[in-house]
Amino acid sequence: MSQKNLQIIVKRFPTGWVQESDFELIEQPLPTLRDGQVLIRNEWLSLDPYMRGRLMPGKSYAASAQLGEVMVGQAAGVVIQSKSSDYGVGDHVLSYSGWQTHHAAPADQIKRIDTSRISPSAYLGVLGMPGVTAWTGLIDICAPKAGETVLVDAATGAVGSVVGQLAKSLGCTVVGIAGGSHKCKYAVQELGFDVCVDHNDPLFKGNLKAAVPSGIDCVFENVGGAIFEHVMSLMNPFSRIALCGLVSEYNQQPYGNQQMRSILINRIKLQGFIVSDKLQTWPPIIDALREKVLSGALKYRETVAHGIAGTPKAFIGMLKGENLGKQLVKLD
Amino acid sequence: MSQKNLQIIVKRFPTGWVQESDFELIEQPLPTLRDGQVLIRNEWLSLDPYMRGRLMPGKSYAASAQLGEVMVGQAAGVVIQSKSSDYGVGDHVLSYSGWQTHHAAPADQIKRIDTSRISPSAYLGVLGMPGVTAWTGLIDICAPKAGETVLVDAATGAVGSVVGQLAKSLGCTVVGIAGGSHKCKYAVQELGFDVCVDHNDPLFKGNLKAAVPSGIDCVFENVGGAIFEHVMSLMNPFSRIALCGLVSEYNQQPYGNQQMRSILINRIKLQGFIVSDKLQTWPPIIDALREKVLSGALKYRETVAHGIAGTPKAFIGMLKGENLGKQLVKLD
Repeated sequence: MSQKNLQIIVKRFPTGWVQESDFELIEQPLPTLRDGQVLIRNEWLSLDPYMRGRLMPGKSYAASAQLGEVMVGQAAGVVIQSKSSDYGVGDHVLSYSGWQTHHAAPADQIKRIDTSRISPSAYLGVLGMPGVTAWTGLIDICAPKAGETVLVDAATGAVGSVVGQLAKSLGCTVVGIAGGSHKCKYAVQELGFDVCVDHNDPLFKGNLKAAVPSGIDCVFENVGGAIFEHVMSLMNPFSRIALCGLVSEYNQQPYGNQQMRSILINRIKLQGFIVSDKLQTWPPIIDALREKVLSGALKYRETVAHGIAGTPKAFIGMLKGENLGKQLVKLD
Repeated sequence: MSQKNLQIIVKRFPTGWVQESDFELIEQPLPTLRDGQVLIRNEWLSLDPYMRGRLMPGKSYAASAQLGEVMVGQAAGVVIQSKSSDYGVGDHVLSYSGWQTHHAAPADQIKRIDTSRISPSAYLGVLGMPGVTAWTGLIDICAPKAGETVLVDAATGAVGSVVGQLAKSLGCTVVGIAGGSHKCKYAVQELGFDVCVDHNDPLFKGNLKAAVPSGIDCVFENVGGAIFEHVMSLMNPFSRIALCGLVSEYNQQPYGNQQMRSILINRIKLQGFIVSDKLQTWPPIIDALREKVLSGALKYRETVAHGIAGTPKAFIGMLKGENLGKQLVKLD
């Protein structure tokens, strides 16, 4: 265990694609605990698409990262010192540590996790924010009925893979969009999607149309841009779209979507949502997802980078869709 | 009374702006009634933006007009012959006649109107489809609370003028967008809007931003295009948009809207709707609107063209926003 705290700070806000040089690795002494705090040694850093939105000075749905400060994000780790009666050394916890090896957190801002049967990393993915995001958008906003066609893009990511499996368990026809044939193969063969369409294929548009012969009733949208525009052209009357992300647009000019007319003529409900708006709903959802994972009904994958120094590179890779399932950084 | 039926038929589907030459005036003998039918002499033809969507072969939310057939639309008229026990000569009725002076309709496809205190023309506007559209989008989809800021564009049209007055009666701050200072003056001075912004003003964008210092909570959208895109950039968290029309886009290429991100970060609900989906809700809404009109709480204006031959020109004028309030054609 390092006796230093290694941190990755934000050096500048990227314009366009994120660069590794937008970040800097620095070394700090371990923080000194105050009363009520615990010192956590992080084992897993979570990398998520929403973080791109933190790397800009403009308005997003949460405060930006700050220049010169540790890059924001969630982490799973182990308590190695405690000045709180609520936590003891050895406890596994989640915290909003950001990209660093150690984190001194007030006890009321961390959460204990049960790692007896499931890896702590799962609480950053299928049993964490991404899993709850999938559940909320699909169940609360799309509310698909059995027999309906549900489409999700970024289908093999941490969120999309849960969306597809949940929709399948509801009796829906599930269509995924992903980048690359290996991802599509995984979606169909391992996650149980009915079909998955590769958006890198030059015949993508025709392939997607052929994949939804009855049209689309529900969309869980993560990607935006031209893919989303094409999806919108295939919607059924009274269909629903849960808008969760626009990852293809985060690194460039916003896309000009010409399918507003589809919302009108098909009476579509398009709703943006942020899972942290309803924190009170998380515990029962996580319990339900945990049951499914333990029974084998809900599968997940992780893509793991090793060592804090590689975090920016892994983050950029995730924004480019290089991961399968949840992107994590494992710290030693 | 003409003993001929003058009809305006669709000669071709327009590409781009509608032309008068897309239509043709023809003369037909009066129809012969079958049992259960009534013969109506139309007094008022309704002209509405949705009709532009009928003039195309593509999918819309209702069947297209047919080439060589009478142009579709609603009309108010008087029964002049009846082979139905439900209607007698002299009854005032609404029917989906289309653009013609006379119409033979099955009794079960027409509706009696009470013209004792209100002009029949009102049942094509404030007490008809446009009024119910305003109510449905505002109350059912936007559901504004007192103190919220409601924005409506095409603010002085048949729909927008009702939206603004209803929102005002709910205690909202009401902001209109209209084309021309005379329209904006009417919206504020006669309809009671708090403010109205002229979209023809070169300073429109800045003026609109200044007009909504607390942001926008509800939008009733009729126009689309660059105006709607700018409106979307001014939305508050958890705001709602009832998408009723995109009239600025009906005659040209669809606009590429770059504000999808606002839907995401502000968790906006954007919902398209078509008022004819819920016909069962119309009677109580019309009753409520009628009470407001009779009490003077709900004002309306009409722009009237005269004679069936001028119908295409009046229709084109309405699509260009030349009307104030409901656009009608009065037949002699």
